[in-house]
Amino acid sequence: MIVIGELINGMYKDVGKAIVNKEADVIQHLAVDQVKAGATVLDVNTGPYSKNQKDDMKWLIETIQGVVQVPLALDSTKADVIEEGLKLVTKRAIINSTNADDAKMQTIFTLAKKYNTQVIGLAMDKSGVPNSKDKRLELAATIVAKAIEFDIATDDLFLDPIVLPVNVAQTQGTEVLESIREFRLLCDPSPNTTIGLSNVSQGTKFRSLVNRTFLAMAIANGLTSAILDPLDKELMDAMITAELILNKAIYCDSFLEAYRKK
Amino acid sequence: MIVIGELINGMYKDVGKAIVNKEADVIQHLAVDQVKAGATVLDVNTGPYSKNQKDDMKWLIETIQGVVQVPLALDSTKADVIEEGLKLVTKRAIINSTNADDAKMQTIFTLAKKYNTQVIGLAMDKSGVPNSKDKRLELAATIVAKAIEFDIATDDLFLDPIVLPVNVAQTQGTEVLESIREFRLLCDPSPNTTIGLSNVSQGTKFRSLVNRTFLAMAIANGLTSAILDPLDKELMDAMITAELILNKAIYCDSFLEAYRKK
Repeated sequence: MIVIGELINGMYKDVGKAIVNKEADVIQHLAVDQVKAGATVLDVNTGPYSKNQKDDMKWLIETIQGVVQVPLALDSTKADVIEEGLKLVTKRAIINSTNADDAKMQTIFTLAKKYNTQVIGLAMDKSGVPNSKDKRLELAATIVAKAIEFDIATDDLFLDPIVLPVNVAQTQGTEVLESIREFRLLCDPSPNTTIGLSNVSQGTKFRSLVNRTFLAMAIANGLTSAILDPLDKELMDAMITAELILNKAIYCDSFLEAYRKK
Repeated sequence: MIVIGELINGMYKDVGKAIVNKEADVIQHLAVDQVKAGATVLDVNTGPYSKNQKDDMKWLIETIQGVVQVPLALDSTKADVIEEGLKLVTKRAIINSTNADDAKMQTIFTLAKKYNTQVIGLAMDKSGVPNSKDKRLELAATIVAKAIEFDIATDDLFLDPIVLPVNVAQTQGTEVLESIREFRLLCDPSPNTTIGLSNVSQGTKFRSLVNRTFLAMAIANGLTSAILDPLDKELMDAMITAELILNKAIYCDSFLEAYRKK
């Protein structure tokens, strides 16, 4: 499982403040803690309070790379902000994200090719998030086709069916879970799949419970990656156990500890 | 989800002792507690210490029915013990179980027809538990075919792919999960599916975690019933949440409480 730590995101108040005030220690603690907890990639998003996203992205990357050496997922709606970041990364990056709009894909896959990155592809377009599995599959197939046009390996894609909050879009849980299963069959080699996990529990009362239950269900459907909070220990326990059940790690009595020591 | 409470089983020491000594209060507490916790069916198994299984089965059923009115799953390898029980049940029962052996099916489906019961069908035969999804599917199909021969409605079947402990049969997790998905497609109306959940964590260190993670994964694959310990609150929380995600219950902020009040 590719675990993309979600916590370095300026939309969280403390992180937003740390970015504005250039408090390196706040960011570096988050980087180290997430990696220690099992994140294999760190998402980097300057967030809505940033006055200069390019500079803030550069500062974040340098600050993070000062303490951990893991791939970064550069998370911005602006291609020029992402490109500034791509010039600095020391490990192969993930662009977060393109959608299925042609102009957007053109821009993002051009960058991906130029900087040899992986790409998160959101199964949505100008008309928004689809409300069916079939529409999600159609948009995912559009992204795969464009990636192939750019000669990008299909397993360098992370297809994201777009998780919606269970409290407002309850019919979408099944659609998303089945999409994950079907995305894997779109091409060979299979694309990776990812989800912005925390979204499923937005506004609900038992967030961690909803998150970890959904994650186990998604892993049962073939999910290979998720953007999540690796500091949620119970969530990580569920993830480690789900992967154990699918025989992705060899059983030992202390399998939780063994995973974390890896 | 049809929750079959597993605790009234003489293989548990305290229960075995209660059966031998006819301690009705022990059994009745277990019956009431399991139903309060969300069990919709109670499994009844006299266990290995029973000296007279027929009498003990009768005593258990009368004792349980003295305090709760729920369907019972009569759990014995002996058809005559099951038949003694079937004469006494006040709600439509489940026979636990037949396998795919022809003689066994003949006996069990004859009883099922005579007493109008539902039946748990284990995807195994004389040669034991299969080690592949395809073999499980073949045996499940054999059971479905025989049920149809007996004019038993296919949704009165509970097909069980046989869960094995993750610590000794790690490759079987995926086979079982995929079997659950495929069993549902065997006939119309779809058969129910069930698992003896606790078996997956047998001998492991984190039993509840393994159980609840496996259960969420199985529900994602279409599981409609499980034999489990309803007194494990975290397990039930995971089950309720998984069903919520699949839109089987309407979301409300207090969805855990709402389920339990039902």
